[in-house]
Amino acid sequence: MVKRNPHMAKLSGGYLFPEIARRKKALLEKNPSAKVISLGIGDTTLPLTPYICSALLDAAKKLGTKEGYSGYGDEQGMTALREKIAKVLYHGSADSDEVFISDGAKPDLGRMQILFGADATLAVQDPSYPVYVDGSVIVGATGPYNQKKQQYASIIYMRCTPKNRFFPDLAAQPRTDLIYFCSPNNPTGAVATKQQLKKLVDFAKQNRSIIIFDAAYAEYIEEKGLPKSIYEIPGAKEVAIEVNSFSKTIGFTGVRLGWCVVPKQLVYEDGSSVHKDWNRITTTIFNGASNLVQRGGLAALDAEGLTEMKQTVDYYKENARIIKTALDALGFETYGGRNAPYIWVRIKGKKSWDAWSELLEQKHIVTTPGAGFGPGGEGFLRFSSFGRREDVLLAVERLKRDKL
Amino acid sequence: MVKRNPHMAKLSGGYLFPEIARRKKALLEKNPSAKVISLGIGDTTLPLTPYICSALLDAAKKLGTKEGYSGYGDEQGMTALREKIAKVLYHGSADSDEVFISDGAKPDLGRMQILFGADATLAVQDPSYPVYVDGSVIVGATGPYNQKKQQYASIIYMRCTPKNRFFPDLAAQPRTDLIYFCSPNNPTGAVATKQQLKKLVDFAKQNRSIIIFDAAYAEYIEEKGLPKSIYEIPGAKEVAIEVNSFSKTIGFTGVRLGWCVVPKQLVYEDGSSVHKDWNRITTTIFNGASNLVQRGGLAALDAEGLTEMKQTVDYYKENARIIKTALDALGFETYGGRNAPYIWVRIKGKKSWDAWSELLEQKHIVTTPGAGFGPGGEGFLRFSSFGRREDVLLAVERLKRDKL
Repeated sequence: MVKRNPHMAKLSGGYLFPEIARRKKALLEKNPSAKVISLGIGDTTLPLTPYICSALLDAAKKLGTKEGYSGYGDEQGMTALREKIAKVLYHGSADSDEVFISDGAKPDLGRMQILFGADATLAVQDPSYPVYVDGSVIVGATGPYNQKKQQYASIIYMRCTPKNRFFPDLAAQPRTDLIYFCSPNNPTGAVATKQQLKKLVDFAKQNRSIIIFDAAYAEYIEEKGLPKSIYEIPGAKEVAIEVNSFSKTIGFTGVRLGWCVVPKQLVYEDGSSVHKDWNRITTTIFNGASNLVQRGGLAALDAEGLTEMKQTVDYYKENARIIKTALDALGFETYGGRNAPYIWVRIKGKKSWDAWSELLEQKHIVTTPGAGFGPGGEGFLRFSSFGRREDVLLAVERLKRDKL
Repeated sequence: MVKRNPHMAKLSGGYLFPEIARRKKALLEKNPSAKVISLGIGDTTLPLTPYICSALLDAAKKLGTKEGYSGYGDEQGMTALREKIAKVLYHGSADSDEVFISDGAKPDLGRMQILFGADATLAVQDPSYPVYVDGSVIVGATGPYNQKKQQYASIIYMRCTPKNRFFPDLAAQPRTDLIYFCSPNNPTGAVATKQQLKKLVDFAKQNRSIIIFDAAYAEYIEEKGLPKSIYEIPGAKEVAIEVNSFSKTIGFTGVRLGWCVVPKQLVYEDGSSVHKDWNRITTTIFNGASNLVQRGGLAALDAEGLTEMKQTVDYYKENARIIKTALDALGFETYGGRNAPYIWVRIKGKKSWDAWSELLEQKHIVTTPGAGFGPGGEGFLRFSSFGRREDVLLAVERLKRDKL
C-alpha cells in the first residue's frame, strides 16, 4: 500500500483557522441564536470599491468578446501588472522582470517552500504566521514536533516579545538558510524600523542567508520613515525575496491576487540563479492568477484605485484604533493596532486557548489564540480589525460590559 | 550560502510550453511579418459564452455590494459549486465532501505531488503531460535525468504507442505507489475504454497503488460507452483520485478553475485518510480559487451553461476534425482528434523537434514536438484544436500547399 507522507504525519493538529472555524461552529450548534462577532481570521468585510469593481466588470465583459478574450497569460503574470507594481510600489527598486504575480501570499509561500526544498534550514519569528512553519513541515524541512516545547525540531524560533520590542536578538541566533520575517507583523502588529531591517539584512549577508520578507500589511504603515519594503534597505536585493498581496488592501481575500519579488542578483552557493528556478517552479506547477482578477490589480494601482485602497485601509485602521483604545481603557497590555491591522493582547494568568474559549462563550467574540502562532504567542490573543464597523463597535460594547 | 535544491538541478531544460514560446519568439524576431498560427499549446481562443460571462459580471457586481461581498471562502471551495459538480458531473458517484475546487488541474497536480512527497514511487504513460514528471522531479520523487534514455531514474514510463493502442501492457509494469493516467489523453488523443480502465483499476487494487486520473478532456468524449470518469468503474473510489478542469470546456484557461475528487475511502498503509491529508494541504498552502471565478463555474453547470459548454466543445471538436481530415488526406498517420482535442501525428524519419522547427520555419505553424512529452513521443507531433476556426483553416491550406 501507499505509505503516508511522513512529513504530513508530523503536522500537529489542523491548520489554525479551520480549527477556529470548527470550534465556532460547535458553539453555534450549542447556541444557535448567538450573534457571534469575528475578530479572528484576517478576513476582509468591506465590499470592493467602485473603481476596482468596475475594472473587474470590464474585464469579465472583455472576456466575452473576440477581441478581448485571452487564454493562458504571460509567464510570470500579466506584463502590464508586473510593470505597474514595479513602478508604483517599488519606484525602481524592483524590476518588472523580478515581479511574479500570484494568487496570494499563502500559496506563493507554499511554492517557495518547494523551491528551497527539504534541505533548507529555516528561522521564523516566534510568534509567526502559521504557514511559514506548517508549509516547511510539509516539504520536509523540519524535524518532528515536540509537544512539550510546542516546536518542530530544527526550526529556529526567534522569540519576539514586548521585552525585545518584537525584534529578535540576532546575535544569539544560529545561521539558517532561510529567515522568514513579517513586518508589519502578523500576529503582533509590530513594525520593524529601518535600523532593525538593516540589522536583519546585515545578518543575512554575513550568514549568506535568504530572507523571505512578508510585506502583506505594508500599506497599513502610516508613520513616516518606517519601511514598507525590505528593498528600502541598501543591498537587500542580494539577500531578500519579498512576498505581498492585494488581500488586505483592496479586499481581495476571496478574489485572490498577490505578487512576489525575486531579485535577479539572488544566487545559490553554486552561482545558479534563484530567480530562474523560481520561474521554473511557477511555470511548471502554477498557471498564474486569474486574468480577470489581474485586471482588478491593475486598476488598484491607478490613481483612482490607490485612493480607494487608502480608504479601505483607513477604514480597517480606524477599526484597529477602536479596538485598541477599548482594550487599553480596560487595562489590557496591548501591542500593534497602529501601522498594522492586528492588536496583540496579553492575557495574564491564562492560557491563550482558554482565554479564547471564554471570550467566545461569554461574549460571543471570536479572536485568535496567540499559541496558534507558535509557543511565543502563549498568553496572548490576536484581535483582527477586518470586521465591519458596526460589529467592531458591538464587540467593544460587549467587552466593556463586564471585564473578562 | 544557500544550496540549490538538488531536485531543481535535476530538471532537464525548461518547462515545455515556455520553451516553445521562446522559439516562436525567436522566429518572429528574425521574420517580424510572419503570420504564425498556433496549434501548439492547448490554449483556448473562443470568447466566454454569454450565460457564463454574465454570471461573472453578476459575481463582480455583487462583490461591490455590502450584501454580496465575501472574503475567504469555504474550506474546500464554494459549497454550492462542490454540490453541483457532485450532482451534475458525477451523478452521485462522488460526494460533495470529496470534491475540492482548485485554480486548475496543473496547480492541483503540483499540490498532489507535495501530498505524496519524495518517497512515493510513480508510473506515467509515455508520452504524457509534462507536469506529472516535472512536478515529481521537483518534489524529489525521482532520480537523476538520463540524457541518453531521456528519462528520469525511478519513474516507470509505461509506453503507449499505436501498437498497443495507447494502453500500456500492465502485466509488464512493476508496482508503483502512484499511477498517473490521462484519458482522453494528452498528447495522444487516445481514450481508454471501460474494459481498459477496469484493467487499470484492477491493477491498482492488486498493487495497492493510487491512480491519479486526469479527466481534463472528458467532455470531448462523444462516443457512447467511453467512460468520462474513472468512477464509472466499480471500486475505483478505493484506488483513484480524479483531477479535472474548466479550462477546455468553457474557455477558462486564463480565468483559472478546476476541481479534484479525493474519495473518503482512500487510505494509506497506516489506515490514515488521504482525504484528510489533502484537506490539510489545501487549507495550508492554498487559499482556494477566486470566489468570482467560482461563480462562473456554478453557471457553467446550469442548463444554459451546459448548453454553452457543449457549443464550445463542439467548436474545438470540429477544428480537430478539420485538422485530422487534412492530415489524413496528406497521407499522415494520425491518432486522436475524435473524442479528444489533440491530434497525434507520426513524422516518419525525423526527430520531432526537427519536424517541429521545419513546420514553424516553412509554414509558420506552431505545433508541439512529441518528444516534449517524454521519450515515447519521439517521432510524433501534437496538433491542438484550440485555435480559431479561420486560423485552423489557414493552417490546413498551408499544409496542403506543399507537402512537408
